[in-house]
Amino acid sequence: MSEEKENIQFELTKELVEQVEQLIEANNDKELRKLLNEFHYADIAEILDELNLEEAMYVIKLLDSETTSEILMELDEDNREKVLKNLSAQEIAEEVEELDTDDAADIISELPEERQQDVINRIEDLEHKAEITELLTYDEDTAGGLMAKELVKVYETWTVAGCMRRIRGQAKEVTRVHSIYVVNKEEKLIGRLSLKDLIVAKSDQKISDLVKVNVDYVNVHDNAEDVAKVMAKYDLEAIPVVDDNQTLLGRITIDDIVDVLKEEAEKDYQLAAGITQDVEADDSILKLTKARLPWLLIGMVGGLGAASIIEYFNEAMGSFIVLLSFVPLIQATAGNVGVQSSAIVVQGLANDSVDGNIIKRLFKEFFLGIVNGCAIAIIALLITHFVFSTPYIVSITIGIALISVIIMAALIGTFIPIFLDKRGIDPAVATGPFITTSNDVFGILMYFLIAKLILGF
Amino acid sequence: MSEEKENIQFELTKELVEQVEQLIEANNDKELRKLLNEFHYADIAEILDELNLEEAMYVIKLLDSETTSEILMELDEDNREKVLKNLSAQEIAEEVEELDTDDAADIISELPEERQQDVINRIEDLEHKAEITELLTYDEDTAGGLMAKELVKVYETWTVAGCMRRIRGQAKEVTRVHSIYVVNKEEKLIGRLSLKDLIVAKSDQKISDLVKVNVDYVNVHDNAEDVAKVMAKYDLEAIPVVDDNQTLLGRITIDDIVDVLKEEAEKDYQLAAGITQDVEADDSILKLTKARLPWLLIGMVGGLGAASIIEYFNEAMGSFIVLLSFVPLIQATAGNVGVQSSAIVVQGLANDSVDGNIIKRLFKEFFLGIVNGCAIAIIALLITHFVFSTPYIVSITIGIALISVIIMAALIGTFIPIFLDKRGIDPAVATGPFITTSNDVFGILMYFLIAKLILGF
Repeated sequence: MSEEKENIQFELTKELVEQVEQLIEANNDKELRKLLNEFHYADIAEILDELNLEEAMYVIKLLDSETTSEILMELDEDNREKVLKNLSAQEIAEEVEELDTDDAADIISELPEERQQDVINRIEDLEHKAEITELLTYDEDTAGGLMAKELVKVYETWTVAGCMRRIRGQAKEVTRVHSIYVVNKEEKLIGRLSLKDLIVAKSDQKISDLVKVNVDYVNVHDNAEDVAKVMAKYDLEAIPVVDDNQTLLGRITIDDIVDVLKEEAEKDYQLAAGITQDVEADDSILKLTKARLPWLLIGMVGGLGAASIIEYFNEAMGSFIVLLSFVPLIQATAGNVGVQSSAIVVQGLANDSVDGNIIKRLFKEFFLGIVNGCAIAIIALLITHFVFSTPYIVSITIGIALISVIIMAALIGTFIPIFLDKRGIDPAVATGPFITTSNDVFGILMYFLIAKLILGF
Repeated sequence: MSEEKENIQFELTKELVEQVEQLIEANNDKELRKLLNEFHYADIAEILDELNLEEAMYVIKLLDSETTSEILMELDEDNREKVLKNLSAQEIAEEVEELDTDDAADIISELPEERQQDVINRIEDLEHKAEITELLTYDEDTAGGLMAKELVKVYETWTVAGCMRRIRGQAKEVTRVHSIYVVNKEEKLIGRLSLKDLIVAKSDQKISDLVKVNVDYVNVHDNAEDVAKVMAKYDLEAIPVVDDNQTLLGRITIDDIVDVLKEEAEKDYQLAAGITQDVEADDSILKLTKARLPWLLIGMVGGLGAASIIEYFNEAMGSFIVLLSFVPLIQATAGNVGVQSSAIVVQGLANDSVDGNIIKRLFKEFFLGIVNGCAIAIIALLITHFVFSTPYIVSITIGIALISVIIMAALIGTFIPIFLDKRGIDPAVATGPFITTSNDVFGILMYFLIAKLILGF
């Protein structure tokens, strides 16, 4: 296995990074260029992420802009920002010239506003410049923010032979030809063709006879996540983008969608773990603190809330002070159940497999809570009585409290995400610490109320 | 926005499901066929998932196998199993006949073993049959398990014109032509071409002059997740699969990879939420219990462990019984910090952005713990003293305990995933309840030890 792995996985070794550093220090441009040219630009970006800024700049200035423009796209965002700061507007414009319009617009949008226009003004290719300027007007979370202007377009009135001739020209600019989009003379999208269809067809056939009119498309203002869902669901590799008048504006390819899906999954994962989105292990302590502290504060408020509940019951408890020992058990159980329930609902909502029928789902969680609750309660009852030697009545109290708390936590964990989703709020915020904290507090309150009822203190 | 959304998102309404049910009950085949033919097969699958088995079977028998085979692939796994049970071996063979080899092999592998051979024997197309039989020999988590046999292959000795002629034949069977793979006379992969290259080339050029030899490929035994990472990283839309002798066996397309990436993200998310993988909101209560109860039991063991720690210190505590009120605060904080730290590391490991330097990362978490710990401790100190009126010395104890617990939780949350990863165990199992529970117990132990030290009980 380990031998085969080398085939497919580039491995970033310390030795490789050191070798690059030494070549930089020795100003050995020839060897360095030779070494780096063996690697894919995504791999070179990984190497640059390990170098210091000065070394990274050395490499960027050494390689040709066709390669460095792609490397730039693959760098860590923080590192890219630093590199761009160290490039002149003219140099950035040269990089941008090499990129597809969607990547070019992304790079420019990351620049400080005062530099953006300066860079745009220096782009020599007038068509490229106009297209990038157009793309910059769309919100980055929309179809317009994802699309590229590069596409292959034919008119319905053309013949296959004429089409092939003209496509040869357009296709040179388009890295990958997924589909050929067919428009009418008003530039409105009327259908699509695959290159394969064209090759298989007879050369005097009319495009209007071949075109598949049942084409999926998205509006330029559609939400990026919705576009991703549609492309994943229908297994599309590219989708055309139109404006409100059905005019063909651009196309979105699957590789951009893979990024959207990955980011979305990471965001939900981090929210569930109590981290405000968009941090990485390598971020600065300040940035990590900003992402983590808010949820810790919420947890603290919950912990202090629990403390006041305990304080309140503490005095009245008298000989049942042993109940306090089982607060962590109640709290851990409530927290775990809450996170489980909410995670399942959040994931279901993300996949559109959970519909809005709250009542049905709450009933299910209720029964699930009874099943899990009884299992946990019986085991806890036996262990507390026989291992901790608590009196039967106290063990029974703990058992009943566990069942009630599990049911309550399951219901809260299910209800809140569905409720937030109905209000148009991302239900993922209701996972993790949010649900744990509220369940901690309600769980402990419920525990003491049940104890008071049964034990009568 | 809502108007535009209709363009791209199929909406599964109660009315639509009811309409389908009514047409089935009325045996109105013509209207039903007309209604369903308006939808994409992925949408029809969503409708079928809402029907009962009898109704779903009615629809499957009604539509032609070209459509139903694709619908089958999109059904919920549980529902597909039920539908397949109700189809004869002959009927399944007819569905399989319509599918690409990778999907066909997936369907057959889901059948009970005794039915598999029966279905295979009934496949009429001998080439299709042989290819499916080959695919069934590979492990589903490998490149072989993902690949399809459908691809466009040319020999290096051919000319462009000859190539185009032969491709017309092959391409009819291949839904999407991403790349044309070039082999030598021993069938060994030597490079690739795009359809675009072919169209742009002159018709008397030799393939060996056009071929791009620097082609990415994977070995048939490579791990599926590794393949997914490579394709995502290098933005590949298809990758050829070879055996140990470099013989071209098949190709993997990006849509299969999108599914692998989604499943991977869901698995990690569920582990972090304390759910053993592979459940959905719509699964049965039994299945959901099986997925959720194990983690709850682990949480219970932790809670009982915490109880014995409290019992142990309880008697000695005397007048400092107020310390018990702040156990939930300590526990919640330890749990939250642990989940945050582990989630960041797990995600970093998944993205290959965290390397194995444990010491460096632990130092970082240590400082992060001090920063977060001091912030939380100071606030808690002020609130406990001024709101809860605890004596200064107790508030200070709580503050110091919080700092220590936060640092400890951060270190445990960072260390365990990296440790597991080094041992070849999926670090994602160390998120969620696992980390919460261990941090709960250690946190409470540390709290009382610090209290004992400061307050001297």
